[in-house]
Amino acid sequence: MGFRLTPQDSSFYSLFATSAGLLVEATRELTKLLEVAVPERPSIAERLRALETEADEATHELIKKVNSSFITPFDREDIHNLAAHLDDCMDHIEEAADLIVLYRIGTLPEGMAEQFQILSRMAEVTAEAMPRLRSLQDLPSYWIEINRLENQADNLHRKMLADLFNNNSSQDPIYIIKMKGVLDGFEEAADSFEKVAHTVEGIAVKES
Amino acid sequence: MGFRLTPQDSSFYSLFATSAGLLVEATRELTKLLEVAVPERPSIAERLRALETEADEATHELIKKVNSSFITPFDREDIHNLAAHLDDCMDHIEEAADLIVLYRIGTLPEGMAEQFQILSRMAEVTAEAMPRLRSLQDLPSYWIEINRLENQADNLHRKMLADLFNNNSSQDPIYIIKMKGVLDGFEEAADSFEKVAHTVEGIAVKES
Amino acid sequence: MGFRLTPQDSSFYSLFATSAGLLVEATRELTKLLEVAVPERPSIAERLRALETEADEATHELIKKVNSSFITPFDREDIHNLAAHLDDCMDHIEEAADLIVLYRIGTLPEGMAEQFQILSRMAEVTAEAMPRLRSLQDLPSYWIEINRLENQADNLHRKMLADLFNNNSSQDPIYIIKMKGVLDGFEEAADSFEKVAHTVEGIAVKES
Repeated sequence: MGFRLTPQDSSFYSLFATSAGLLVEATRELTKLLEVAVPERPSIAERLRALETEADEATHELIKKVNSSFITPFDREDIHNLAAHLDDCMDHIEEAADLIVLYRIGTLPEGMAEQFQILSRMAEVTAEAMPRLRSLQDLPSYWIEINRLENQADNLHRKMLADLFNNNSSQDPIYIIKMKGVLDGFEEAADSFEKVAHTVEGIAVKES
Repeated sequence: MGFRLTPQDSSFYSLFATSAGLLVEATRELTKLLEVAVPERPSIAERLRALETEADEATHELIKKVNSSFITPFDREDIHNLAAHLDDCMDHIEEAADLIVLYRIGTLPEGMAEQFQILSRMAEVTAEAMPRLRSLQDLPSYWIEINRLENQADNLHRKMLADLFNNNSSQDPIYIIKMKGVLDGFEEAADSFEKVAHTVEGIAVKES
Repeated sequence: MGFRLTPQDSSFYSLFATSAGLLVEATRELTKLLEVAVPERPSIAERLRALETEADEATHELIKKVNSSFITPFDREDIHNLAAHLDDCMDHIEEAADLIVLYRIGTLPEGMAEQFQILSRMAEVTAEAMPRLRSLQDLPSYWIEINRLENQADNLHRKMLADLFNNNSSQDPIYIIKMKGVLDGFEEAADSFEKVAHTVEGIAVKES
């Protein structure tokens, strides 16, 4: 684990690090979805729901803090956006994973392992970058890496959709509708990670 | 009806109350959709379209007012967001109801009555809260109730999707695609009500 | 062509004009999609991807410029929103066109020609308006026209969805899911053009 959580420090930075740390945990749960037997998936979805609740509380604390602080380390609007986009990452991950369970999907497509690897990497890189917001040092490598990963995620997503529709062995329309919903959800998670990075880039350029 | 409209008062507060009041009317029309016979549904969709046009005009007036006012009661950005999210509530309600007509859907799923009850309650609670923006008093009960309702709407939405896909009697894929579009639209309306509440919470904490 | 690009002028205005100019080019490629034979479509999708990359770079340059400028012609937030919404127009156009290729769709629905005409007109009107941001003159005709076009696009979109689902000759659910994804993508592009116009309206009223 390349990032540090300092929960005794209730600063903005540590609240962002907490949010991003929860995303690292969430993407680890995702990976487990592919390893366990189908009947064990609901307990992973429950674990993700618990992480989402925790993330909601972290976001709420941040919003309260920014609104009640006289001085904030950077623009209130940027802090708001950063918190909201981190929250969106978690929401999309939790919902897409829950749909796999709710829709009683059996076989998951092969590309999903790579999709989860990309999301895991995005979460790790984000969690590593959050503490660097304090010094505003070494951030470009973070957003360049996120842009690269999002591009990779987007290409994979389109390829998986094409496979889903064109692969003759999966021409069951019900399965296609379900799986498209799941794949789109994970792609929205990747988009949200990119929005986090855009917000960080905006902060860094403005404050430097 | 627990809220008051004061149209003679052209202040920001009354414009917000007007927008929210139109949402109360719109959710009443929704409820009627479940009570009338199928051939009478188009006239309800038309009534919703008229309400949406009215809401558009209210939003437009608000935007003009905020942009031309030297002093505004709270941040321009917050006023903009509040107006835009109220507008989104109406847009999603009108569009989802129209899809029921356009798609020539016959039987509507049972859960929809509860979905509409939640949206009605969200609209009422929102309309009751708008005039309290003036004093910024008694607002936490509003956003706590909206968060609770949105959580309820989200759980119901997931349950309805699972039923739609897993219920053996409705395995017609065309029906599933249509109904998923409608259900997702109403869930987006509930999300928009929550965004309204988040914006109000931000304003209240900042100004207090 | 009613708009002028002045690439030697690296001002905010010319960067917006460049972005909008790329959208004019993109909507021209869309029109070609309907004229060429199916095997030639991938090369048009590739051309759109190149335009999207160019638009990304223009947006990135704008964001860097606004964040590093001491004085900006109007609010940073408005410039950010304008750049982001212009970028969204391109993203939705490129993605929806790519889906036509990825999904290996053969026959395209008749209404698509009109949908593309509306998007072309939106792009042209937007590109013509961008240079007028400098003087803030003659802008109302622009946003009124965009609102009119978006309304037209929305009505056409709903009509096309109804035809897709209700037309007996196209009851292949797989085709319906694919085509709905494509039509929704182009409708999101039209929505993004409207968001650009809303942002311009906000700027004009505020600064005048």
